[in-house]
Parts: sequence; structure tokens; C-alpha cells
Amino acid sequence: MIYGSIEAGGTKFVCAVGSDKLEIIERIHFPTTTPKETMEQVISFFSKYKVSLKSLGVGSFGPIDIQKKSKTYGYITSTPKIAWKNFDFIGELKKYFDIPIYWTTDVNAACYGEYVAGNGVGLSSVVYYTIGTGVGGGALQDGRFIEGFSHPEMGHMRILKHKQDLFGGNCSFHHDCLEGLASGTALEKRTGIKGQELDKSHPAWEIEAFYIAQCAYNTTLLFSPDRIIFGGGVMKQAHLVEKVREIFTDLLQEYVQIPAIDTYIVTPKLGDNAGTIGCLALAKEATS
Amino acid sequence: MIYGSIEAGGTKFVCAVGSDKLEIIERIHFPTTTPKETMEQVISFFSKYKVSLKSLGVGSFGPIDIQKKSKTYGYITSTPKIAWKNFDFIGELKKYFDIPIYWTTDVNAACYGEYVAGNGVGLSSVVYYTIGTGVGGGALQDGRFIEGFSHPEMGHMRILKHKQDLFGGNCSFHHDCLEGLASGTALEKRTGIKGQELDKSHPAWEIEAFYIAQCAYNTTLLFSPDRIIFGGGVMKQAHLVEKVREIFTDLLQEYVQIPAIDTYIVTPKLGDNAGTIGCLALAKEATS
Repeated sequence: MIYGSIEAGGTKFVCAVGSDKLEIIERIHFPTTTPKETMEQVISFFSKYKVSLKSLGVGSFGPIDIQKKSKTYGYITSTPKIAWKNFDFIGELKKYFDIPIYWTTDVNAACYGEYVAGNGVGLSSVVYYTIGTGVGGGALQDGRFIEGFSHPEMGHMRILKHKQDLFGGNCSFHHDCLEGLASGTALEKRTGIKGQELDKSHPAWEIEAFYIAQCAYNTTLLFSPDRIIFGGGVMKQAHLVEKVREIFTDLLQEYVQIPAIDTYIVTPKLGDNAGTIGCLALAKEATS
Repeated sequence: MIYGSIEAGGTKFVCAVGSDKLEIIERIHFPTTTPKETMEQVISFFSKYKVSLKSLGVGSFGPIDIQKKSKTYGYITSTPKIAWKNFDFIGELKKYFDIPIYWTTDVNAACYGEYVAGNGVGLSSVVYYTIGTGVGGGALQDGRFIEGFSHPEMGHMRILKHKQDLFGGNCSFHHDCLEGLASGTALEKRTGIKGQELDKSHPAWEIEAFYIAQCAYNTTLLFSPDRIIFGGGVMKQAHLVEKVREIFTDLLQEYVQIPAIDTYIVTPKLGDNAGTIGCLALAKEATS
């Protein structure tokens, strides 16, 4: 038996099948275009494995409807990506695959991946953020996602502007929320240079770290998690996490006694595989 | 059999005994002075009931150590109230009462009270804040407190200053965090008038509501709870919650579909009894 993983990101989809031990057997990716075109590729990939596919784990960009009693459970809801708004993701999959499907956000899936096989192993409470094209976050406590009327949308928390930041923010809902100021897109708009090409001495990194540190600060005060993991494209700049730790420590003023800072604020152990591993593990979860 | 409740607030202690049905049988309160003097009153009150007292629930001001494996479990830790710093609260109680004791923060206890007998009944996820002398918050999901390396310290989240607010904030750790700007103490320092004497047309209420609305906003984005309950002395101004709802709605920009606003942001059903009822319920919990 094998498990299927669908990481439905706003920019690209990653589909994979994996073993009971969460080993990836095959994986493909393709850009997120229209629902029709994109879902055709999803269906086509998994159709090859239809006989042995036991379940699917889906981590989707959002907001999504996760309320099982809701009429629109399994839908992508109020996304700014117009073509995907109110798209019945799970309904579409169910037309082709009559198997259990776990449905959650892309960041929750990555959080789960790190929780079961990465930097969250053995801990009780973990919060995961992705700082990429957008910013999103997910949290787990004792193996359960933090949620209520819906899943969290942590990327849109409010933060203070850096005094030297002249960029107004680019969140279409809130302008200068965390995502509006700290996403890879915001970083590029602020400097005119892509993050991966931005020299590590560039002052924009100080601004970026200030925003992520505030995110870590609020996360600490609201969840007191055992660990905060920052993933996503922007965090691939190895110098950034150290800057974040420094500013965070300064903000906290030792008000609470956190675990050792180098083990408290970290990047993902699984790197880009966190989402895939997480979706596979959630697919397994869906069968239990 | 009866249960005991100790609400250990920074300003006053409330001790009570109650029935299996969480009915309050007797309750007393006295100011928080030195640990010696205050604890003598606590011990004296419960000694009357020693024969029938089955367990105790304690909700304490903090930060406190809730890690059962820690050497300082049951202690008040880094509080700015010097006399109580590193005070072994549970150790002191255990000298006199060899019964199960539930140990948590004052706000967690109040949150639990509302969860089991107030405005949280029947919901999965509830966050409770007290806006009083200080600001604190606690959260429950499916009956379990949100926690990790420690309990949350939500009152110290960072928020944006109101443009018309000239007060610098009075948190001794972070100056202008939520507590530093929105506590009853801050409100009085800003205006020179006690909150309960401040006319509802005073512009300070708009500033106060702006801060509490940001708190509700961040709470929504990080937890997506089913309900947020704002208690504490400052919230007794009935006009305030309506202002908070208005500003919160404006901040959210309908990014996520919250429950109906009048049921989403509310004041405590149990009023000042939330903490006592919560501690009694937690005392019961400690025996199971």
C-alpha cells in the first residue's frame, strides 16, 4: 500500500506517493495555473497508482474550509487567487479517488511533517511558519492542530513597522500585516532585488529579521511552544535565522524563560520536504 | 466532599469552597501583601474545611512554573512583584493540605470557568483575556490548555500605537506591549482618571478599544478560536466591547469568515466568578 501527498501551493503543486515509512517513491511538481489544468495533472499523476493508493493527504493554500459539517468542506474559500476561489478541491478529488482524504492547509501539513519526522520530533508543542511568496503558519499541540472556527491565518498578524522601512506593504487585505511586510514578494518589492540575489550585508535583511522576530515574539507569548520553525524560500538565507534570534531575544527582555535560543527558533530539518512528508503522514492518519 | 478554589491575583486573593456542582459555599477575599501574611489567610480559611476538602484548584498570577518535571514546579517565577518571586506556592500549600492540587495561571482558571460553565460551554476552542490591573490571556482547545515550554503570556503581545496616544506604556519589561498600553493601570496613567470614573465619551476609550481590537485580531489569526472572551475590570464599561467589535471588524477586512461578531467577541457570562468557578472545576479535574 502507498500513500499520496498533494502540496497545493499558490505558486506550484507538488504531488508525491510514498511508503508506510514516509519514504518518497515518486514526486512531481508543476505550476499552479487554473483549477482545471492543474487538477488534470494531479489526477493524471495519482491515476498511475490508483490500485495501490490507500489514502491522500492534501495541504492546500487557503483560506480553506476545514469544518466537516460545513456545506463547503474541502473548498478553497476567500483566496485572492480568483480562479481558485470557492473551488471544491476535495469534491474534485473524490470524483476520481474513493479513498480517505486528509484536508488541511499547506502550512499545517509542513508543520506536521516536521512534527513527525523533522525538528518537532519528541516535542509537545510546535509552531511552523513559511516565509515565502506569502507567509503562513500552523501549530500543533500533542499531535492536534490548533484550530477553532477555522484554521489559523498567522501570516496576517499585525506587526510594528521598522523605522527605516519605506515600503508600505503589499497584502491586498491588510497592507502592512506580517505577510504584507515580510513575504519574499514584499522583500523584492522593497529592494527591487530578488531575495536570493540580495547580498547578506543589505540593510533589508535587518528589516526582514525585525519582522520575523516580532512574529516569533508574538508566537512565544500566545503559544509558549516548545519550538518555532521558520521555513520557506526567504529562510534559505542561512544568516537570517541568526539575526531573527538576536532581535527576538532583545524584544523578549527575558520576560519568560524560553528554551535555549538555538534550539527554540530553527529552520526545518526536512527543508523543502516538510510539506510532502507531512501530507504523507496525514494520509496515513486519515486511514486510522 | 467539597472543593477549594484559590484565585491568587496580583492585587487580591479570592479563596472559596464549592460543591460538586460548582456552587460556591463560602468565599472570602483579601489583599495580596507578603507571601507570609497572605498565605496565612489562605491556610486559615481552608483549615476550617480540612476534613471534607477533596482537592484544590489554584489560579495564580505569574509567570509561574507549570512543568511537572521541573524542580521549581508550583513556583511563581519572574514576577515583577519582588516578594513573590521564586515563591514555592504549591510547596507551601502541601505543608498543610495533603490533597490533589491543580496549578495554573489566574487567566487559565478564568478561561476554564467560562469554558465549563459560562460563555465557552459547548465550544471547542475559547480564548479568554482579562483586561484589569494587568493584561493576561489563556486558551483552551477541546478542554486542554494551550501551552508548551510554559503557559502563554498573551498580555505582552506587541501591538501598534494609536496615533493619538501620547502615553509611552508602562510595562516594566516591554514598555508599549498590550499590557503596557491597555491595562487599567495604563488607562489611568494616560488620562489621570480611573477607568470606572472616565466618561464614556472620553477619547481614551477609542484608544483602549483600538488596543483590545488588535489583541482580538491577532488572537483570531493565530488561534481561529470559536469565541474570544474579554473580562477584567476595564471590560465592565459596557460600551467598550461594542467599540472593540467595530474596530476589530475594520482591521480584519473580512479576510476570514468569523462567527457572528456579537457571539464571537464577548464579555464573561460568569463575570467576576469566572476564576472561582474555574478553580473549583480544576480542583475536581485534579481528582479524576
